[in-house]
Amino acid sequence: MPIDPPARLLMGPGPVNADPRVLRAMSAQLVGQFDPFMTATMNETMELYRGVFRTRNEATLLVDGTSRAGIEAAIVSLVAPGDRVLVPIFGRFGHLLAEIARRAGADVHTREIEWGGVFSVGAIERAIVEVRPALLAIVHGDTSTTVAQPLDELGAICERHGVLFYTDVTASLGGNPFELDAWGVDAATAGLQKCLGGPSGSAPISLSPAAVERIEARKSVEAGIRADGDAVLDEPIRSNYLDLGMILDYWGERRLNHHTEATTMLYGARECARLLLEEGMHVAIERHRLHGSAMLAGVEALGLDVFGDRAHRMHNVVGVHIPDGVDGERVRRALLEDFAIEIGTSFGPLHGRIWRIGTMGVNARRDAVLTTLAALEQVLRAEGHPLTADSGVGAARDVYSETAA
Amino acid sequence: MPIDPPARLLMGPGPVNADPRVLRAMSAQLVGQFDPFMTATMNETMELYRGVFRTRNEATLLVDGTSRAGIEAAIVSLVAPGDRVLVPIFGRFGHLLAEIARRAGADVHTREIEWGGVFSVGAIERAIVEVRPALLAIVHGDTSTTVAQPLDELGAICERHGVLFYTDVTASLGGNPFELDAWGVDAATAGLQKCLGGPSGSAPISLSPAAVERIEARKSVEAGIRADGDAVLDEPIRSNYLDLGMILDYWGERRLNHHTEATTMLYGARECARLLLEEGMHVAIERHRLHGSAMLAGVEALGLDVFGDRAHRMHNVVGVHIPDGVDGERVRRALLEDFAIEIGTSFGPLHGRIWRIGTMGVNARRDAVLTTLAALEQVLRAEGHPLTADSGVGAARDVYSETAA
Repeated sequence: MPIDPPARLLMGPGPVNADPRVLRAMSAQLVGQFDPFMTATMNETMELYRGVFRTRNEATLLVDGTSRAGIEAAIVSLVAPGDRVLVPIFGRFGHLLAEIARRAGADVHTREIEWGGVFSVGAIERAIVEVRPALLAIVHGDTSTTVAQPLDELGAICERHGVLFYTDVTASLGGNPFELDAWGVDAATAGLQKCLGGPSGSAPISLSPAAVERIEARKSVEAGIRADGDAVLDEPIRSNYLDLGMILDYWGERRLNHHTEATTMLYGARECARLLLEEGMHVAIERHRLHGSAMLAGVEALGLDVFGDRAHRMHNVVGVHIPDGVDGERVRRALLEDFAIEIGTSFGPLHGRIWRIGTMGVNARRDAVLTTLAALEQVLRAEGHPLTADSGVGAARDVYSETAA
Repeated sequence: MPIDPPARLLMGPGPVNADPRVLRAMSAQLVGQFDPFMTATMNETMELYRGVFRTRNEATLLVDGTSRAGIEAAIVSLVAPGDRVLVPIFGRFGHLLAEIARRAGADVHTREIEWGGVFSVGAIERAIVEVRPALLAIVHGDTSTTVAQPLDELGAICERHGVLFYTDVTASLGGNPFELDAWGVDAATAGLQKCLGGPSGSAPISLSPAAVERIEARKSVEAGIRADGDAVLDEPIRSNYLDLGMILDYWGERRLNHHTEATTMLYGARECARLLLEEGMHVAIERHRLHGSAMLAGVEALGLDVFGDRAHRMHNVVGVHIPDGVDGERVRRALLEDFAIEIGTSFGPLHGRIWRIGTMGVNARRDAVLTTLAALEQVLRAEGHPLTADSGVGAARDVYSETAA
C-alpha cells in the first residue's frame, strides 16, 4: 500500500513534525547535477544558511546525511590521526563527539560533569591549558539533558590558545541564540529535524577560514597515497564520503564532481532556512523561548519537577521527572494511543527517570503546547496520579497572556 | 521564492527524473523514531529490498546517504586497516572503490583494463590467487564506460578462495539482471537515482551472513577503545556514521538508537522498491533492455558510433562518440535550452569524446526515447553535422514494432 503514516503530534526531543511547506518543497521534480538551476539553488542555499548560522563564512553548505554525518564530516576532516582533541562532556552527544574523534584516530581527552549542568568557562580554559588540543569539540544544546552550554566566550579562549573550536548545534540552532561569527566558532554542524522544521537527512555545516585552511592543508596529501611509517599526520582524510575538502570543491567555484547531490533533501533544507529567515532568526528564537516557557509553566503547574540547570535550559525541550509510582512508559503509550502525541524517553543515567517534552520547529506553537498539557493531565489522572488543583493548560495560558500584555 | 525547478527530461547517466509516485510518498508526514508505524515501515522496507536484490539476507537495509555512503559503509565496515583488498578497475567507479579502501587503511591491489571492456573471469581469478585478498571489491555496471562486468561466476570463485565479494550495483540494479544470492555476493550497495527511479540520498545495502559475521567480529572491539601498538587489526571500524555493525543493531531486532532516520528518504526508498516489485523485477529489467535497445538503434541510425564492448553493454546507458567537428558541449547546451533534455558528458579518458545517454527508471519509456532522438537529430542538423537519410526515431520505432510483433 502507498505510505500512509498515522497523524502524530511529535512533542519529543526530535525528530518533530516537518513543516508542511518543507514537505511541499521536497515534492518538486529533480534537475541534473550541473544544471544551471541546480548550481543557482546550491549557491542560494549556502547564502540562506549563512543567515541561519549568523556567519559570513564562504564555506557554508550541506553534508548529505543526517546530523551525525555532519558531525563526523567535521571531525574526520579537521582531525588527523594523533591530533589531540578535547571534548567536555555534559550529556549523551558529548560522548558521541568523543567516540567519533577516537574512530578518526585522534588522541581524545575528555572532561565530564554530571548530567543536567554545564561547564564554567574557567573549567574549559583550564582543560585547554592542560591538554593543549588541536581541536575543542563541544555540544551546544544537548537534548539528552535539556541544557545548553554557553559558548559565547569560548571562541576568544580558543583563539588565544591556538585551538580550533567545533560545536554541534543540531538541537539548538534556530530555537536558541547562536552567533557563529560573533562567538568565534570555527566549525558548526546541524540537522533539519529539530528547530529547523524538516526531516532528518541533511546536515548544514559552516566552516571558518581557519577551519578551511586546516582542511586544505590535509588535502595536499594526494588522495589514495598512504603515508608510510610514523608520518600519520600525513595520512589523507580517512573518509571519502565525508571529506570536507572534496565536499568544499563540490560546493565551491570549481563544482568538482563528488557524490550525487541528494536533491530532494537540498530542496527541503533550503525551505527550512527560508522559513526561519522569513520569520527572522531573533523572532524564531523568541517563539521557541515563549512556547518552551509555557510548556515549563504547564508541567510545573501539574506538580511535576523539572530536570536540569534552570539557568541554562534549552528553549526547545524540557526534562520532567517521572513521579514516583508512575510508569513512565505506560504514560507515553497512553499519550500516543489516545491522543497521538509523542513525548520522549531518556538515555543513559536518566533512563526511566525523565520524560523529555519538546516544543520546536513547526510544533513550537500555542495549540501544540496546550493540547499536550491537556492530554498529559488526562493521562496522569487516569493513571491515578494525584494532581494539584492547578491546571497545566491554565498556567501555560497565563504565560501567553503575560507575553501578550 | 518557493522552489520551482524548470521541467527537465533527464536522459543522462543519472540522476534521472524521480517517479512522481516516489515524490508523492516523500510528502507524507513524519512519525517518531520508535513509533510502531516506523518500526513496521523499516521492516517492510527491508523485505521489499530483499525482493529487489534477489536475496534472503536478513541484513538488507538502508544507509542514510547517497550511493557513495553505501559504498563507504560496506568497505569501511568489512575492511580492517592492513587487510588486502583487490579492486579490478574498468571505469571511474572502480577507482572510487580503490580510493575508499585506501582511506579505510586497506592494502589495496588493483588491476586495470582499458575503459569500454570488462574483465574475463579467468583474469579475476588469477588476480585473486596472486593477491590473496580479504575482499574483492568490484563495480557491476559502471556508467562511466556504459558496460557491466559479468559477476555470476565470481561468487563461487571467491568462496573457493575464502574471499568476501562486494559489488557496487548503484547504476545497474533494477535495469539489468542481478541475483545476489544466486551469484554468491556477500555485500552489494545501491542508490535510488538510477533505475530505481528516486532521488539520490538513500543507499540500499544487503549483506550475506558471512559479511555480517565479519562485521560482528570487528564490533567486538569496544567502540572508542583504540588498539595499542601494532595491533591495527583490532582497531574499531573507522567510522561511527557508516559503521554497519551499529546500523545493523539499529535496523535489527534490538532497534538500538544510532542516527535519526532520514524518514522522508525511507518513504522514498520504500516506494522505489514497491514500483519495481509491482512491475516485477524481470519485467522492469526487460523494459530497460527494450528502451535501451531502441535508443541504441536510434543513435546508430543517426550515423553515430557507439562506445564500448557491445556484448556487455548496460541496458540503461549508451555511450556515443561525439562526431569529428561537432562541439559536444554546444550540442548538450542546445538540447537543454531548446528541448529541456539533459544528456551526459564523460569523465577521465573519455572526457570530450563521448556523450552518455541514459534510459532508466521512469524515463525508460517510449516517449522519452523518441523525443530525445528527435531532439538530437534537430540539434545535430542545426550544428551542420551531415546526417544519414535514416531517422533515429524511425529506427527506434522499428525496435518497438519488432518487440510488439
